[in-house]
Amino acid sequence: MIHVCRKEHFNAAHKLYNPRWSKEENEAVFGPCANENWHGHNFELIVTVKGNPDPNTGFVMDMKQLGALIKQHVIQKLDHKNLNLDVDFLEGKLPSCETLVVEIWKILEKELANITTAKLHRIQLWETHNNFVEYFGEQ
Amino acid sequence: MIHVCRKEHFNAAHKLYNPRWSKEENEAVFGPCANENWHGHNFELIVTVKGNPDPNTGFVMDMKQLGALIKQHVIQKLDHKNLNLDVDFLEGKLPSCETLVVEIWKILEKELANITTAKLHRIQLWETHNNFVEYFGEQ
Amino acid sequence: MIHVCRKEHFNAAHKLYNPRWSKEENEAVFGPCANENWHGHNFELIVTVKGNPDPNTGFVMDMKQLGALIKQHVIQKLDHKNLNLDVDFLEGKLPSCETLVVEIWKILEKELANITTAKLHRIQLWETHNNFVEYFGEQ
Amino acid sequence: MIHVCRKEHFNAAHKLYNPRWSKEENEAVFGPCANENWHGHNFELIVTVKGNPDPNTGFVMDMKQLGALIKQHVIQKLDHKNLNLDVDFLEGKLPSCETLVVEIWKILEKELANITTAKLHRIQLWETHNNFVEYFGEQ
Amino acid sequence: MIHVCRKEHFNAAHKLYNPRWSKEENEAVFGPCANENWHGHNFELIVTVKGNPDPNTGFVMDMKQLGALIKQHVIQKLDHKNLNLDVDFLEGKLPSCETLVVEIWKILEKELANITTAKLHRIQLWETHNNFVEYFGEQ
Amino acid sequence: MIHVCRKEHFNAAHKLYNPRWSKEENEAVFGPCANENWHGHNFELIVTVKGNPDPNTGFVMDMKQLGALIKQHVIQKLDHKNLNLDVDFLEGKLPSCETLVVEIWKILEKELANITTAKLHRIQLWETHNNFVEYFGEQ
Repeated sequence: MIHVCRKEHFNAAHKLYNPRWSKEENEAVFGPCANENWHGHNFELIVTVKGNPDPNTGFVMDMKQLGALIKQHVIQKLDHKNLNLDVDFLEGKLPSCETLVVEIWKILEKELANITTAKLHRIQLWETHNNFVEYFGEQ
Repeated sequence: MIHVCRKEHFNAAHKLYNPRWSKEENEAVFGPCANENWHGHNFELIVTVKGNPDPNTGFVMDMKQLGALIKQHVIQKLDHKNLNLDVDFLEGKLPSCETLVVEIWKILEKELANITTAKLHRIQLWETHNNFVEYFGEQ
Repeated sequence: MIHVCRKEHFNAAHKLYNPRWSKEENEAVFGPCANENWHGHNFELIVTVKGNPDPNTGFVMDMKQLGALIKQHVIQKLDHKNLNLDVDFLEGKLPSCETLVVEIWKILEKELANITTAKLHRIQLWETHNNFVEYFGEQ
Repeated sequence: MIHVCRKEHFNAAHKLYNPRWSKEENEAVFGPCANENWHGHNFELIVTVKGNPDPNTGFVMDMKQLGALIKQHVIQKLDHKNLNLDVDFLEGKLPSCETLVVEIWKILEKELANITTAKLHRIQLWETHNNFVEYFGEQ
Repeated sequence: MIHVCRKEHFNAAHKLYNPRWSKEENEAVFGPCANENWHGHNFELIVTVKGNPDPNTGFVMDMKQLGALIKQHVIQKLDHKNLNLDVDFLEGKLPSCETLVVEIWKILEKELANITTAKLHRIQLWETHNNFVEYFGEQ
Repeated sequence: MIHVCRKEHFNAAHKLYNPRWSKEENEAVFGPCANENWHGHNFELIVTVKGNPDPNTGFVMDMKQLGALIKQHVIQKLDHKNLNLDVDFLEGKLPSCETLVVEIWKILEKELANITTAKLHRIQLWETHNNFVEYFGEQ
């Protein structure tokens, strides 16, 4: 049982803003992250899958294939986008890092099941050099 | 003559979009960077000043003071902002990295002249891990 | 259940020196780390808390609030200090990374309990680019 | 119970090539990694051991000693080598990252048992900035 | 006059070996870098061009276009290759970093002249985290 | 004419404290850096030499040899030391980064002249992730 990890990047705009609250309430809770004109980040996404290596290839999963899957189903929907306005799987959700890793988990868990017996293990998302979140699919 | 360098950060949204062009022309030139709903970055700004050390302090310039000056006059205006909409010194300008370093140079050159004999030498701005620009104040 | 991680920094001096041993014994065990005139590091501290996101904010815990808590109760006591001489919670202890993460765990576990239902999960401390320790609160 | 982690480096050549397959099959599966003339990487290896600190030293294990052990038994055999041709413990194996972490685990688990009660916990190996694997010794 | 910088990557094998010398002489001069079975690196290439921004785009040169040019004319010839055997523009040359930056300069100076008035300013090549070279086209 | 650059590391304690001033004056000028019990850093030193490559080796200067020279004449005197108390070439000087790069320049310029025709070009010293200085030997 080995963990295989692949890093991908996307650049996106977002704001942290609860539409059921007033502007003042949003600013009190989210501070400058509530700026109605948006701000943005260079996000780094690290996806980990686990499984046993295939003796013919030495691979749990081809990391280039893993990278291509992440790009097709996640990065293309997020890169150079507005997370509040442009992303179907975030509609009606507050685009915090916590929300992002749960939604990315759902997408990749399903897509991986189509092509490999390796299992999704962890989604790690860096928003800045100092802030990141991790999700292991646990309820 | 020694160079003293200070790194600061800001997170901002922008789009690359020439308002005198059609949407199609903008997308042809700027690609996904023209997304009308914005995207964003974690920018890293490195400011270099040069001068001779003061024998009483060993400093060309106190790097904490340099950091405070950059925060007060540059970072506060850019961090968690929309570079196209929220920043007075970028009004009417295309907020490319090239534009940013020239405008930041103008601000810091003037502010530094008020407090030190050290001279501004270089503004370096990283937009992503792979893209950055440098400006030395040369016409 | 999501992990939220925050990185903070401090610069400190220390020496690895067991006061019950002779200088020769200390140098034999700790090598240059036993230099009686001290040496120092740029430490990087990554604190992880885990919990379920609040549906109103999308946050397990506001990472700025987490950062502020770490700064108030840990960084202010360690930054620009001598770990052998200046820090109340290290008195009488050998200031190795292992000691530091256990003591930082005790402080943050208690402080977090006052303000959040999220639980402290991991303290990671980097002493150099090549050396770091992790603590999960396990006995 | 604390985790102590040490990073070491090696630069090596390899190719991903199954000798039981034709050149065309290898290129179809491994792409440019199958280049018969080799390619190479700057590998980063992070070794984690876990245990309880010795009250006399504050150490689970002296990280310099851990570094020396890794250098003697692993890095010296891999650095500036060809992973397909020069390394006894990889003979007859496909030198993927997955293979490497399992073989490095076997070596270090045995060597650590000779000198410490701390237990090997994790082998992490970075092949590029974007690809890495982790192994915890699980079957 | 602004500098625009783009980072690209390639992974390659090489050896430092002067074919006019004996194996012993090569090992005496180049040490483990002379291993006849090759070793390899993750190279990082930073290309800087300088010029004045176009007022219509804010760009000295579109960094994506610069990246594409570097990939087409340099990276495709070096990535997953053997620098001693596979690269036409290195034939008969010792593939040190110094040689590489001079040959890359020649290629990019010519290709850039076809598409932009911006001038090549610097080629920086990182071989490891600790070793890099820079070339400014000076004789 | 090519620049060859080598990074080395040292961990040291220091304080910024002018012995001709009172404790209060030192704290007013240097803030927490004046802590009489010291603080410390992981310093990163990048040394650049310039010259023409030797056609027999492809090298301006062997980077391993450059690294060994820096270690012998600079790192050994600074690593795990107190910059105010333990270093002969800093005696009677305020150990700011500015002071360090000038003194390191003097040492390496002389030592390099004994073994190579390549010339010292730049000393770059990083004190933290955000602060660094550069010196080119200019008066």
